[in-house]
Amino acid sequence: MTVLERLSLNQATVSRLSVPEAAELCARHEIPAIGLWREPVARAGLPAAAAAVRAAGLSVSSLCRGGFFTHADPAARAAAVADNKAAIAEAAALGTDTLVLVSGGLVPGSRDLGLARRMIADAIAELVPVAQASGVRLGIEALHPVFAADRCVITRLGEALDLALAFPADAVGVVVDTYHVWWDASVLSDIARAGERIVSYQVCDWILPLPADTLLGRGHVGDGHIDFPPITAAVAAAGYTGPIEVEIFNEAIWAAPPDETAETVRKRFPLAF
Amino acid sequence: MTVLERLSLNQATVSRLSVPEAAELCARHEIPAIGLWREPVARAGLPAAAAAVRAAGLSVSSLCRGGFFTHADPAARAAAVADNKAAIAEAAALGTDTLVLVSGGLVPGSRDLGLARRMIADAIAELVPVAQASGVRLGIEALHPVFAADRCVITRLGEALDLALAFPADAVGVVVDTYHVWWDASVLSDIARAGERIVSYQVCDWILPLPADTLLGRGHVGDGHIDFPPITAAVAAAGYTGPIEVEIFNEAIWAAPPDETAETVRKRFPLAF
Repeated sequence: MTVLERLSLNQATVSRLSVPEAAELCARHEIPAIGLWREPVARAGLPAAAAAVRAAGLSVSSLCRGGFFTHADPAARAAAVADNKAAIAEAAALGTDTLVLVSGGLVPGSRDLGLARRMIADAIAELVPVAQASGVRLGIEALHPVFAADRCVITRLGEALDLALAFPADAVGVVVDTYHVWWDASVLSDIARAGERIVSYQVCDWILPLPADTLLGRGHVGDGHIDFPPITAAVAAAGYTGPIEVEIFNEAIWAAPPDETAETVRKRFPLAF
Repeated sequence: MTVLERLSLNQATVSRLSVPEAAELCARHEIPAIGLWREPVARAGLPAAAAAVRAAGLSVSSLCRGGFFTHADPAARAAAVADNKAAIAEAAALGTDTLVLVSGGLVPGSRDLGLARRMIADAIAELVPVAQASGVRLGIEALHPVFAADRCVITRLGEALDLALAFPADAVGVVVDTYHVWWDASVLSDIARAGERIVSYQVCDWILPLPADTLLGRGHVGDGHIDFPPITAAVAAAGYTGPIEVEIFNEAIWAAPPDETAETVRKRFPLAF
């Protein structure tokens, strides 16, 4: 298998394209897989989105995203769990076995990290039987600590893994995203420890200066400060052989012609090895 | 001892004041200690700065900062070590036993976190005998991972502690700064493990949205998302009985009248307990 056969384009990298447009872009650039997002899938319609990626001959590496489990109101928590059950069904319908979870930040009005973390564990526990019945694994993604307050209190791969290990391996795993975990002195040992729990590997670079919207400070592989090869090697040594998604949130890249972006993604991808 | 007797105003919170002005501000507001920075100390002149804080009846809780050890050029690394030796002497002359270290980001032109971390360890090893001879402890500060590339590759309290433990306890300890470590699921256990190695405890809050210059996104205690009491309790349980610095980098606070800032700092400080 060549390196480029591992490539998957996460649709967030070309966020202005519809699912059919993104699928055709991948086919045009011989990118064999795509990571989908729920919002554009909903805009296309679930059956049409599934048909578009099938028609383009792509596999679907993951669906982004479930999660956002942390709410003060029990009804809101129940609604989040219900929405995540729907996301599991969508993942299955799209033909992917991986639903990426961004678990949620502090509970509104609270500073209690432990409370937020317990809510996440409780919600995942409710989802496990549904995931197992659907053949979909939930991928807990550790987000960079800069997002701890407002998006995800799970801030390290090791923490995501400890949570995943509380559930069966066929239901819950972890997502390794270089952008979120590169800085952690324990990341290589946590990847080794994760082993078969790794359900997704995503790459994009950490660039400086950070933009005003921190969410968008991601770059093409090679444009920033991340040392990819040791991380990629650790993920391989842990036994992960699946697709590797390039997922970049960046205003300038979003504004660029998508064919140019796809070309750069392909050209830079081997630098991650 | 009342809570307010533990308060120290880090001079960075009123960054537009000279050392004598900041010292008088503390005296006026019955703040018994001050944390000094090398640049304003140099502007005042070392003997004059020391005299000003003595005249105001203050103790000096720390000198900020040494560090920035990571350079590609051996001559630049040697210059950094020499500069840190000077900082140790300044700390002793100012009557504080604590020099805070911001260790440095990636080596320019390199993505190798391990290289940067080894350079930091090597530099600290060179400083240990000087610190011991001067009665000054080096406080390794873990910075928030958002600063890993450009300011400090030591991103977690546990990592700072592991490094400190490689050196004698009378020479090297750790700084606990809520802003940098609050998000970490291991922070309370790392504080317990740190015990006597804690040489400084600093508080300020994590506020959102982040400003364009991420360095300046800090708030008064209570204005943000940090749950201070469990961290303060853990620091106390670990045996730390020293001053607690309020250190806030924030353009709006810098632009506010310093007497107003000092009043707010005093008023908010008990919320950290």
